[in-house]
Amino acid sequence: MSYAALHKAFEEIGRLAHAQAILAWDEAVMMPVGGGAARAEALATLAGIAHRRVADERIGEWAEAALAKGDLDEWRQANVREMLRAWRRARALPESLVVESSRANALSEQAWRVARPANDWNAVAKPLAKVLELTRSKAQALAEALQLDAYDALLDGYEAGLRCAFVTPLFERLKAALPNIIDRAIGAQRPALPLPGPVAIPRQEALARRLMERVGFDFERGRLDVTHHPFCGGDPDDVRVTTRYNADNFLEAMFAVLHETGHGMYEQGLPAAWRGQPVGRSGGMALHESQSLFMEQQVCRSPAFFDFAAPLVREAFGADAADARWAAANLHRAATRVERSRIRVEADEATYPLHVILRYELEQALIDGRLAVADIPDAWNAATQALLGFDLEGEHRDGCMQDVHWFGGLCGYFPTYTLGALAAAQLHRAAAAALPGLADAVRGGEFEALVGWLRHNVHSVGRLRDTSVIIEAATGEQLGADALLTHLDARYAGAAHV
Amino acid sequence: MSYAALHKAFEEIGRLAHAQAILAWDEAVMMPVGGGAARAEALATLAGIAHRRVADERIGEWAEAALAKGDLDEWRQANVREMLRAWRRARALPESLVVESSRANALSEQAWRVARPANDWNAVAKPLAKVLELTRSKAQALAEALQLDAYDALLDGYEAGLRCAFVTPLFERLKAALPNIIDRAIGAQRPALPLPGPVAIPRQEALARRLMERVGFDFERGRLDVTHHPFCGGDPDDVRVTTRYNADNFLEAMFAVLHETGHGMYEQGLPAAWRGQPVGRSGGMALHESQSLFMEQQVCRSPAFFDFAAPLVREAFGADAADARWAAANLHRAATRVERSRIRVEADEATYPLHVILRYELEQALIDGRLAVADIPDAWNAATQALLGFDLEGEHRDGCMQDVHWFGGLCGYFPTYTLGALAAAQLHRAAAAALPGLADAVRGGEFEALVGWLRHNVHSVGRLRDTSVIIEAATGEQLGADALLTHLDARYAGAAHV
Repeated sequence: MSYAALHKAFEEIGRLAHAQAILAWDEAVMMPVGGGAARAEALATLAGIAHRRVADERIGEWAEAALAKGDLDEWRQANVREMLRAWRRARALPESLVVESSRANALSEQAWRVARPANDWNAVAKPLAKVLELTRSKAQALAEALQLDAYDALLDGYEAGLRCAFVTPLFERLKAALPNIIDRAIGAQRPALPLPGPVAIPRQEALARRLMERVGFDFERGRLDVTHHPFCGGDPDDVRVTTRYNADNFLEAMFAVLHETGHGMYEQGLPAAWRGQPVGRSGGMALHESQSLFMEQQVCRSPAFFDFAAPLVREAFGADAADARWAAANLHRAATRVERSRIRVEADEATYPLHVILRYELEQALIDGRLAVADIPDAWNAATQALLGFDLEGEHRDGCMQDVHWFGGLCGYFPTYTLGALAAAQLHRAAAAALPGLADAVRGGEFEALVGWLRHNVHSVGRLRDTSVIIEAATGEQLGADALLTHLDARYAGAAHV
Repeated sequence: MSYAALHKAFEEIGRLAHAQAILAWDEAVMMPVGGGAARAEALATLAGIAHRRVADERIGEWAEAALAKGDLDEWRQANVREMLRAWRRARALPESLVVESSRANALSEQAWRVARPANDWNAVAKPLAKVLELTRSKAQALAEALQLDAYDALLDGYEAGLRCAFVTPLFERLKAALPNIIDRAIGAQRPALPLPGPVAIPRQEALARRLMERVGFDFERGRLDVTHHPFCGGDPDDVRVTTRYNADNFLEAMFAVLHETGHGMYEQGLPAAWRGQPVGRSGGMALHESQSLFMEQQVCRSPAFFDFAAPLVREAFGADAADARWAAANLHRAATRVERSRIRVEADEATYPLHVILRYELEQALIDGRLAVADIPDAWNAATQALLGFDLEGEHRDGCMQDVHWFGGLCGYFPTYTLGALAAAQLHRAAAAALPGLADAVRGGEFEALVGWLRHNVHSVGRLRDTSVIIEAATGEQLGADALLTHLDARYAGAAHV
């Protein structure tokens, strides 16, 4: 019963992953600073235990035997394929490197959390150098074992099968096309009336919960909390959505929450029969991001969504319906303003890919050794000038210190954001074709059909199929840049705001 | 280097304990109901891994070799003694029983959380029967291995060395002495003016934080949150104090928080050099409870504390200083009212031991098989009538369902509450003798000397010495009932309220 042995082994690995996910959420959301050292050690210990179990040589033997028997259905076959993927990556890495890396990531992320508000690059340069040194070691070990380039080996960890050879041409096309779209958008847009403020955080939170419920987030199986950097963590039946609030601009948290809710609903929609098994997990991070951006950008920044949401906003904030600043059209205008600005997570969807491309190019240079940690601030500033056209003037907190990713050991992750944007646009075009009257449904606050379409085409598939296959099956074509560019052109740079 | 091997092994066991502590806190405080099944499995998996490591046969060999060498200092010797204690208990239990028990406890506790407000005994009887069956199996296995009676084997798990032969005579003395003290207290007390209410929960929470800070809780290494049943969890550098709030009686949460703060400050005061090692952990639960009750009952229900706290209460609640209901004397009167009532955690300190004795007698009968789960409600009611003099009239939520302990697998734990009360009274008497002007210091909000005395005599000792030795060294006598009875008599039944 080699399949049964695999199932049991990965059931336990899944439970360790549950523990790691909740502890990581707690670390970011709840933990007092004094707990940092003990938490880093505990996470490193769990990472070591989980790694040893995934890398167990019997996994390979059992998988070979299970596949050889030839009697597995497609879900079990896919499950074994995913186990082997995890096993091959784990086998490539010595446990000591996994543990050391886990510890260094946690400590560096803790240092970043304190240093960013203080704009203190010197406080993070050393822990970041340690993290990148270990990340490079991991990339090289994986590259050898998987016969990939080092950076591709990292990409592959976030989205199986993803390679620079696929990403770079898409990104080059965006680099060429976006400046023109951005310029036309900036020329065409009318300024929104300034939004009244400040809005007290409990009111913003109440609105966020209401919107989450309305679009279909299940609070019996999830939470909403406050953190430094919005993310969605936890487990399919215990999804932890997090956000931060800006009293002076409620749209930031509202859309951060809708974004993370897209991630969360994907998790909640995974196949219940396969909980805890590799095939029951969400797909790669590009597919995951397609679900958050589908919700945030494609659905919720549409005029139809604002027709639905504006009354809820006014109700939550006790606002006057006769005040034009709270009208759907004005809120929509404020939420779709295009601007070359500093912060990726606050960027509009037309300039956002340029932020990602900046990081994609720098992190490749970090991994292949062309760029040293000490040179990151200058390189970041130069790239910002080239891609976005302004100078950061030493404001590292709004430059190379703005994102937690590298500090937390996530290198090769950024490109999945923009691949997710491409996929979201392509999936939304397909959903709109399949669901006549979609905009009217959104206007009426009816999300069931839309969510049903995502459940059927993406969520319930788990890892039965690869991301590229899922997207092609749902949209009828390979992942490309057309749908996103068409969408941006229509919404921002066309004759009318759409 | 057998000592080094032990140190390393228990360092990892300590990290697993950190993970378990935070996940258990999250389960009670944060987790949405849908996450319950996955959490129970994750906790069971961690319990299994930790158990296997503690029960590793090499621990015994290493410990023997380390002790034989004869070159360990007293901390290392005590560390090895604590390791051996844990090892012997772990060796007695098969891993399957530990895992099954962990899972059953988590599921039963989840069922209790829903069933208690609904007063639904039937919904918990079955999971509780499962928990008790497994608890009995554990008790029997431990009893055989340690050559103890079954119930003593459970007691020993919460306070090493504790036996019924020590507990029962003390409890018999309390059973004999308390009714008279209670009757005299009820006869002597004057009713407090009714407290104004309701008090909004954010205001109560702000007061709780302020008081925690003033008595010396370190929020850089701890938190305060809301839960169903107040407890103190987490880790020495990441202490999780929890409470619930009653809008109509702010004193409940205020004293629950001060109680848990006593636990938390003990954790925060443990010897930093021994973090994660057995000798660096807090002592048994009786000693732990002595620290919470020292703070709650001995210090904070004194008139001196109310002189200090009343202005803070009024400030936090925006209350009028001229209103006699908010005067220190009236608040003190309200907080020291003696009454035979239903709920243990809300009971005054004179009747509280009777609640504990009730549970102590019933749980012995559950473990030795004289009492079946189905008969708990009747037995609880009969014992309530005998010890407290009233009928519960089918209100199980205020009777046998009021406490989480049995549902969560904690049997043999209750007696430590009252042993803690005895120890708290004895320690406070010794502290008052050692620190002249103690009441004036408390009146002035100066807690440093008092906390310093506890740090020196209890907190910083960790498990270097056994509880009985710690108490005798600090107070000059063996643990007994005199100090508590004297204290109760003086505060409640004497000529004046003290």
